Amino acid sequence: MFKRFSGAADALDMLISRSQPLQRTEQLPTLRGEGRVLAQDIFSPLSLPGFDRAAMDGFAVRSEETKGARPHAPVFLERFEPVRTGMPVPAPYDSVVMLEDSIRRGSVLETTAQLHPFKNVSRIGEDIAAGEKIFSRGHTLRPPDLSLLSALAIEEVEVYQRPKVAIIPTGGELLDIGSRPIQPGEAYEINSIMARLYAQKWGASVHKTDIIPDDEGLIREAIAANKKADLIIIIGGTSVGERDYVPRILAEMGELLVHGVRLQPGKPTAIGVVAETPVVCLPGYPVAMLFDLYLFVRPALQRIGNRCDPQPKVRAVLTRKIPSRPGYLSLVRVALQGEQAEPIMISGAGILSSVARSDGFVLVSEAKEGLEAGETVDVFIFE
Amino acid sequence: MFKRFSGAADALDMLISRSQPLQRTEQLPTLRGEGRVLAQDIFSPLSLPGFDRAAMDGFAVRSEETKGARPHAPVFLERFEPVRTGMPVPAPYDSVVMLEDSIRRGSVLETTAQLHPFKNVSRIGEDIAAGEKIFSRGHTLRPPDLSLLSALAIEEVEVYQRPKVAIIPTGGELLDIGSRPIQPGEAYEINSIMARLYAQKWGASVHKTDIIPDDEGLIREAIAANKKADLIIIIGGTSVGERDYVPRILAEMGELLVHGVRLQPGKPTAIGVVAETPVVCLPGYPVAMLFDLYLFVRPALQRIGNRCDPQPKVRAVLTRKIPSRPGYLSLVRVALQGEQAEPIMISGAGILSSVARSDGFVLVSEAKEGLEAGETVDVFIFE
Repeated sequence: MFKRFSGAADALDMLISRSQPLQRTEQLPTLRGEGRVLAQDIFSPLSLPGFDRAAMDGFAVRSEETKGARPHAPVFLERFEPVRTGMPVPAPYDSVVMLEDSIRRGSVLETTAQLHPFKNVSRIGEDIAAGEKIFSRGHTLRPPDLSLLSALAIEEVEVYQRPKVAIIPTGGELLDIGSRPIQPGEAYEINSIMARLYAQKWGASVHKTDIIPDDEGLIREAIAANKKADLIIIIGGTSVGERDYVPRILAEMGELLVHGVRLQPGKPTAIGVVAETPVVCLPGYPVAMLFDLYLFVRPALQRIGNRCDPQPKVRAVLTRKIPSRPGYLSLVRVALQGEQAEPIMISGAGILSSVARSDGFVLVSEAKEGLEAGETVDVFIFE
Repeated sequence: MFKRFSGAADALDMLISRSQPLQRTEQLPTLRGEGRVLAQDIFSPLSLPGFDRAAMDGFAVRSEETKGARPHAPVFLERFEPVRTGMPVPAPYDSVVMLEDSIRRGSVLETTAQLHPFKNVSRIGEDIAAGEKIFSRGHTLRPPDLSLLSALAIEEVEVYQRPKVAIIPTGGELLDIGSRPIQPGEAYEINSIMARLYAQKWGASVHKTDIIPDDEGLIREAIAANKKADLIIIIGGTSVGERDYVPRILAEMGELLVHGVRLQPGKPTAIGVVAETPVVCLPGYPVAMLFDLYLFVRPALQRIGNRCDPQPKVRAVLTRKIPSRPGYLSLVRVALQGEQAEPIMISGAGILSSVARSDGFVLVSEAKEGLEAGETVDVFIFE
């Protein structure tokens, strides 16, 4: 039987409490930093612009000499200099009159705009002052951030390393994809494909072991060999069958925190810790595993990776009633049609074709007996 | 002056009407297909499961022989066979009794559960029947889809090629990043960093040209050399300065559809077509360019790439009033604090540090004179 039987929120709390934000950092060329998390505050080494810069094409002039200029009453300037956008505005000039507001006639500029000081000039340090903090530790670098760092000639950044995730698929009936045609009783090991791609999407670097048969000693060895990872994901072997050793092994090698979660699908989930490394044991049924990736692995990797990326979701209206089992957190696949969400009413945890037809999932909390047609819900999008 | 002056929606319509969905396809190994768009319908070559499969660990039995079994009144079976999850249920058995509901005593199985036919059995073809359509052309492949395809031994998929984007940065004052320290009047060319990373994120493959100085002949050459691209992005040279040749060149080499958009920031945007390739000319001011990427380049690439990926957004409440210019579509940077959005009130189109401090942007439509504090708005997240 299941050793413990936890609510989903409690199970997640236990996992998160044993998942520590990574402290290891690395230096990266700025241009390779997209999506990475800064491990340092960044202060600007210089001012931007580094000089008083023309913000328009036109003529650099002294603003005080334009006093009184207006559309039908131009003033005539003898001191001016053509500038274009981005160029320095040289002393003694302090402003730029636009092409539209001026006509050059030989050595005289006729201007119809009265300017105030620094009109059409980006002043030195206006964007960023030298020494100013521009990013804080923990900031995730996006494309415009790399542009800004490059503008400041910051060529390297210190970022947190990617969390290392070890994925251990178990099951004597499993074959590597494409190794040979499957026979009755066999199946291709397909769960690690999802687990790997999602872990990478969520910022981790992944090491997948060979498929481990249902052999207690070999499973122990695989865990021991990967205990330096930041998170271990074991797939399969978490139920209560005679060969479902994994929870017992966790208890013996370290601590078993959770075995069995009031989750539908996903009940046979186990969580433990071995040598301070959190271990998540996911059921081999692909739909249950997919939901466990979203419910447990994603938040754990966010915490370990010092991230807080919002999970993509949209609001939509249910087209049909969703029944659910009270006391259990239910995850229901839905297909989106504009702003409507159509539940895909297939309960089987192994039915991956139902995911193929769905765009995301809806959570039904333990306190509810389902959701009604017409309710507005958050749909979490399968990335 | 600007040749035409378009509303943002009209400008986008013109661009989209000239952006054709790509027909070119390529074959890819399934495992490299994540995020790609299927160019074929996919039908299952086989049934899944391919046999009647035990859904529980236990014993295969004939359901009719369990009639009358209940907790304190077991029935005794002589014909049974141990099975574990995933194994075939062999003839003549049609159901599986769980371990919890049975005790084996030598050659007799004592069972306390009355089973109906196929109880705890996943029937052949239950997930997918051979010949069934599982994905339609246009579907974007996600990690569980790759798992499903692999389970079906589909090792290759036909997907649309990535749209080819040519990025042409222009400006005589620009230097390649890090090539040497900049002097007054010079700047590093940083806009193509954003443009490249976003175009890639939105599914394109990117070719960036060298920086083209403000020379009409060289700009023409660069456009001509890239007219086989699916989309050309020219950065800079789109305003009305004397050296802002680009719109005129577009008109001469093909068609100039838009020059000047009622957009704040982003007015000096131009859109044209050369040899049937849509060309988007973006202002060199980085914030204006960033917004133009979201407003024009993203939808164009979605259409060309046969995609309709939802743009990440969250609902939030404005902490302060946002003024805006009526008749112009305004894009306002905001920083998120939980469910509150704090406008970053900096109007300068060149102020990239304001993007560093913001999480996304809010649109204020042409019909409005701004948004009030307390209004609930959609915040589009900077990816």
